[in-house]
Amino acid sequence: MSSRVTIHMAASLDGYVARKDGSVDWLETSDEYLAGDDMDPEFVETFLNAIDCYVMGSKTYEVALGFEEQGFGWSYGDKPTYVLSSRELPKTRDSVSFYAGELAPFLNEQLRTSFDSIWVAGGPAVCTACLRLGLADEISYSILPVMIGEGISFFEAFGMDLPLHLAEVKAYKSGMVDLRYEVKKAAES
Amino acid sequence: MSSRVTIHMAASLDGYVARKDGSVDWLETSDEYLAGDDMDPEFVETFLNAIDCYVMGSKTYEVALGFEEQGFGWSYGDKPTYVLSSRELPKTRDSVSFYAGELAPFLNEQLRTSFDSIWVAGGPAVCTACLRLGLADEISYSILPVMIGEGISFFEAFGMDLPLHLAEVKAYKSGMVDLRYEVKKAAES
Repeated sequence: MSSRVTIHMAASLDGYVARKDGSVDWLETSDEYLAGDDMDPEFVETFLNAIDCYVMGSKTYEVALGFEEQGFGWSYGDKPTYVLSSRELPKTRDSVSFYAGELAPFLNEQLRTSFDSIWVAGGPAVCTACLRLGLADEISYSILPVMIGEGISFFEAFGMDLPLHLAEVKAYKSGMVDLRYEVKKAAES
Repeated sequence: MSSRVTIHMAASLDGYVARKDGSVDWLETSDEYLAGDDMDPEFVETFLNAIDCYVMGSKTYEVALGFEEQGFGWSYGDKPTYVLSSRELPKTRDSVSFYAGELAPFLNEQLRTSFDSIWVAGGPAVCTACLRLGLADEISYSILPVMIGEGISFFEAFGMDLPLHLAEVKAYKSGMVDLRYEVKKAAES
């Protein structure tokens, strides 16, 4: 099985993915790190092209819809996007589907058999469940050059040790740092 | 005034500096990041020589004493070490002093006039107070390649935005990543 499940989140240095009210205005930082890589449109396109589908919780979906309403566009292109929810939510495009069942069989039996690169785009509850259930192969963690003092944490307490392997470190001109870790499986750690 | 106050802490990827019971056994990770820098004894010595004094809370001091009792040595060499505490604590060496007053005048009037490089070595309450009161110039944040699921967070909620400037990114063979940020002062941000 060559499929790969990557948990991705952008957070402040103090580990928050959103303010308590859910807002992410602070993602717009104004730093400049001269030694960093450029994040030009081609780089971003290549990066996004390598992702085959997205999985997210209902609140993350609603945040994405909110962005779109504000004119910032839809962040997930035409890639299949699976929203985990038992709530009724608007289906705004063909690429969006909803799923209300168990996470493990959905990822392992449905998505892994169809897609090579599966990105879990949040929120904290979904990401934490993936880690706790051993469903994730990688963590892609983007740290913005800001602290926001309080908010919603990326990681919910999940009460176990998870050894990681640092696989890649990239810093960008914007002052954002991307850390990529492989999750060590029980046998390796 | 050329003195510099640096807040330093090593944390798990999920932002904990210790388990709930205060233990830091998880700092011993077993990762290998081939692209990383070596942390050889000369490098460590040069790094530590550039620090002129340490400031820490009482629990961090007690953790350091515990390390010493277990045979791991004293981490702060013969550099002046100021322990912020109103409790009675053992004075184990001449370089250790205790201070029970206000943090801001102590740092700004006493330490900054005597030392160029002042390291705040924890814990979370002291570090957070330094940030909230605008006393820190830099944050040196070391991320270990492990998640521990729950514990004591580096940053306590301090309820304000703090824009940062990414100044340096270093990854080591051990899988540890060091991020150094300058704290932007109100006028710059």
